[in-house]
Amino acid sequence: MQHPDEPVPPGGSGLVRVRLDVAYDGTALHGWARQPGQRTVQGDLEQALSMVLRVPVDLTVAGRTDAGVHATGQVAHCDLPQGVWDEHGPRLVRRLRGVLSPDIAVPSVAEAPPDFDARFSALGRHYVYRLTDDPAGPPPLRRADTVGWPRPVDAGAMAEAAGLLLGEHDFAAFCRRREGATTIRTLLALDVARDGGLVTVYASADAFCHSMVRSLVGALTAVGEGRRPPEWPAALLSRTERSSDVPVVPAGGLTLVRVDYPVDDELAARALVTRARRDASPA
Amino acid sequence: MQHPDEPVPPGGSGLVRVRLDVAYDGTALHGWARQPGQRTVQGDLEQALSMVLRVPVDLTVAGRTDAGVHATGQVAHCDLPQGVWDEHGPRLVRRLRGVLSPDIAVPSVAEAPPDFDARFSALGRHYVYRLTDDPAGPPPLRRADTVGWPRPVDAGAMAEAAGLLLGEHDFAAFCRRREGATTIRTLLALDVARDGGLVTVYASADAFCHSMVRSLVGALTAVGEGRRPPEWPAALLSRTERSSDVPVVPAGGLTLVRVDYPVDDELAARALVTRARRDASPA
Repeated sequence: MQHPDEPVPPGGSGLVRVRLDVAYDGTALHGWARQPGQRTVQGDLEQALSMVLRVPVDLTVAGRTDAGVHATGQVAHCDLPQGVWDEHGPRLVRRLRGVLSPDIAVPSVAEAPPDFDARFSALGRHYVYRLTDDPAGPPPLRRADTVGWPRPVDAGAMAEAAGLLLGEHDFAAFCRRREGATTIRTLLALDVARDGGLVTVYASADAFCHSMVRSLVGALTAVGEGRRPPEWPAALLSRTERSSDVPVVPAGGLTLVRVDYPVDDELAARALVTRARRDASPA
Repeated sequence: MQHPDEPVPPGGSGLVRVRLDVAYDGTALHGWARQPGQRTVQGDLEQALSMVLRVPVDLTVAGRTDAGVHATGQVAHCDLPQGVWDEHGPRLVRRLRGVLSPDIAVPSVAEAPPDFDARFSALGRHYVYRLTDDPAGPPPLRRADTVGWPRPVDAGAMAEAAGLLLGEHDFAAFCRRREGATTIRTLLALDVARDGGLVTVYASADAFCHSMVRSLVGALTAVGEGRRPPEWPAALLSRTERSSDVPVVPAGGLTLVRVDYPVDDELAARALVTRARRDASPA
């Protein structure tokens, strides 16, 4: 299972699959995906890893977050030559800390089973969206991940609308279209909670298509402001393409908080299922 | 009780005492107290209030925090002409939001009893200090108020040392000296809790003298690192001046989270007691 097709590098006896847990404040970052001339999480992280390990590193990620979106529980993987891993693995977290900007952190680096795939093994993704309708604006110490909402919202109405969206549906109305990609997803949770001025939306799904969480929250805020009835977001599920009626809320309120994976001996089976279904980019 | 000695401004019938609840990310601020040529909370806030209200405003604060220290529950007061308060009070929170930088917020502005004094009526101040000894460093979204600690600390030993400091003592060893000021304080709580890499110290007292919380936490970290026994911080209570053995931890980990006040009809009595004891600046 050591990827026998790969060339064996000097000093190693094959490749090790490595799982990285990643957290970032996305404010100053142009999203996950590497882009020339822009600071991105993938770009910074691959550069930091290559600098410390002195080999090129190519990361695969669970959730390709957009510009401005944050993460506390992002997951990525890469393959490293055995010799490199043996030499650097034990001190890698601390050494990355010394190289990365403080808006990106790697809380954990660990050897994973060869079948582990950060993207295709994932069973579910969990996001949190934070907005406040307090006229005083976001709490200063949480302003990076809390959006100030200019009008009061009814969190009860938002929760009612959210409940009608649960389950397996074609979320085309809430997705930025990608050629040939499916927009059928299973929405496992969409909870709305108020604590003082802070309204938090918890969203969980097997996977989200592009801009889906921010479109779902956008539809809920239209209900929360009383501009739409609670039945409206669910009624959009009959549409086959993105609806321009659905506002997309600002990126800064969104945080990827967790990615779920099966136990080790079910990783290969899960990846087979996901890859087979992947006319989409589950991220 | 409307401060009869004050001149009555046109359009008003005396002065109203106003309580402001204030929150700030202290990272870019040179502390509470107004200073020429520096951004400070008092300076920014008085300027914002004067701009909105078109009268000069002079704030009195519960805790004069140092440069870099944060607050989620700071309290200040000022006196405003009745006519100005009547005209602007109801929309003041929202209007301040439009004028202040996002690192300062005023969650609440309310009329207070004439006897209310943000500084002298206060019964207790509550601070939180956050540090992490996780080799990955502070969580990116909480890096403003969490200090990365370079060595592992034993939170159990810190808690043991903390317990020995409770009660009324002369905290001279932990205070930056001010001429003629008492350093006798009642430490009501000093709790240490670990959650993963995060170590949080909760400190409550009737009042803290200058740099006291950061010196107490500094003494605890010396114990946490094993450089001093748990009995050491309490042994310093016998000293009559600041001990250079006590490290002062960085300002960025410290947040003023709450100030306690008595019920309204005990405000005057409390202020009398505090003023009588005030050879110190209780802040």
